[in-house]
Amino acid sequence: MNKTLIAVDGATQALRQFAQERDWQQFHSPKNLVMALSGEVGELTEIFQWMSEADSHGAASAPATARAVSDELADVALYLIHLADVLGVDLNAAIVSKLASNAAKYPVAASRGVSTKYDQLPQS
Amino acid sequence: MNKTLIAVDGATQALRQFAQERDWQQFHSPKNLVMALSGEVGELTEIFQWMSEADSHGAASAPATARAVSDELADVALYLIHLADVLGVDLNAAIVSKLASNAAKYPVAASRGVSTKYDQLPQS
Amino acid sequence: MNKTLIAVDGATQALRQFAQERDWQQFHSPKNLVMALSGEVGELTEIFQWMSEADSHGAASAPATARAVSDELADVALYLIHLADVLGVDLNAAIVSKLASNAAKYPVAASRGVSTKYDQLPQS
Amino acid sequence: MNKTLIAVDGATQALRQFAQERDWQQFHSPKNLVMALSGEVGELTEIFQWMSEADSHGAASAPATARAVSDELADVALYLIHLADVLGVDLNAAIVSKLASNAAKYPVAASRGVSTKYDQLPQS
Repeated sequence: MNKTLIAVDGATQALRQFAQERDWQQFHSPKNLVMALSGEVGELTEIFQWMSEADSHGAASAPATARAVSDELADVALYLIHLADVLGVDLNAAIVSKLASNAAKYPVAASRGVSTKYDQLPQS
Repeated sequence: MNKTLIAVDGATQALRQFAQERDWQQFHSPKNLVMALSGEVGELTEIFQWMSEADSHGAASAPATARAVSDELADVALYLIHLADVLGVDLNAAIVSKLASNAAKYPVAASRGVSTKYDQLPQS
Repeated sequence: MNKTLIAVDGATQALRQFAQERDWQQFHSPKNLVMALSGEVGELTEIFQWMSEADSHGAASAPATARAVSDELADVALYLIHLADVLGVDLNAAIVSKLASNAAKYPVAASRGVSTKYDQLPQS
Repeated sequence: MNKTLIAVDGATQALRQFAQERDWQQFHSPKNLVMALSGEVGELTEIFQWMSEADSHGAASAPATARAVSDELADVALYLIHLADVLGVDLNAAIVSKLASNAAKYPVAASRGVSTKYDQLPQS
């Protein structure tokens, strides 16, 4: 039995209805939605590009950026959820599986305190 | 009272624990996590770059790409959820708000069947 | 008469020949090449995602990253040049025009020492 | 002796002067410039996201998109050139080297007419 790490049914239904009402399914091929997702991540990136790491911690509360940060995170989430729906991917199952695989690739002892990629970690 | 369009508590807790066990919070500034999210979207993009729109509909069931598609969608979701957590953004509230704003920007009558950006739609 | 800010004839010819020899023009629609460009920028981003700004200055000389940085910059340049060629865009003319427009959007006096986006700069 | 596939001296000098006049070097760490490059590729992607592959061939001549396409290609080129300069990477040498390595990874016979990634090509 799978744990519930993420639940997206409400958003999935809302996005289907949004697209159907506007007859937009014709544009929503997975290829196009990947590009749209990528474009939104680009907009999110632009908010942070000249910001220091230290300042970035306050980006969602700073008056100049709070709304933009929230909106771009939402846009990324919405395209991701719609893309998974159109592809027929169960996001929760995908996350459960990937977290297990990440835990195997990054054993606590070898990866503690280092940002080294898994294929360059010392082997146990 | 907000609707629940997305629920990410389980994943949020799992990601916090994953980072804490490995002492990775030091790397997880919002700025860095935006870059990591962007890198994962890049990997997702690479799967689809030479695929036709028609073929892209089958990408999550085709043996050559199914696992990669599922894994990259999961990676994008995981970094997005962790980023929202570190920033202190409530993803569900952000989505509810953005969907309402999208509905206002894209009235059904004006946007039906066209992919025109909202600021170039005919005004009612 | 235009200044020469960038010259890409050699690379343009080499890329045409590379694609022709492999019968790859069929994959090289502008849409697909934009995705390929985006994927390479994703790989470049992954090199820098956990690096501090200070450390990033040495990324092209550090043994662990020098070759990868050089290769990813080359990949981005190659897809950009091939994309401009397939689209029929003169990169030098595009750059000359964009630099002039940037200079107008960012007057020295108003933009000195600040990273503010042009549409939020104080008007003179 | 290296071939000249790309020459960027003019743009490199123009970009140095542009940054110096505005005291912007403080923002132009390689890490930040990678994000800025990524943001511009995101804007380029948004132009093409709902366009068919067939239509994308005309994007640089269609009145609705020609200027935007040219401007975004220029922005990508400018950040790429400035990034290479700040990193101390010789873009021409990087391209010459990468093209040679691509030719080795994609032998004409094995890769003709297929978009298969090099590590999945049949071995000769």
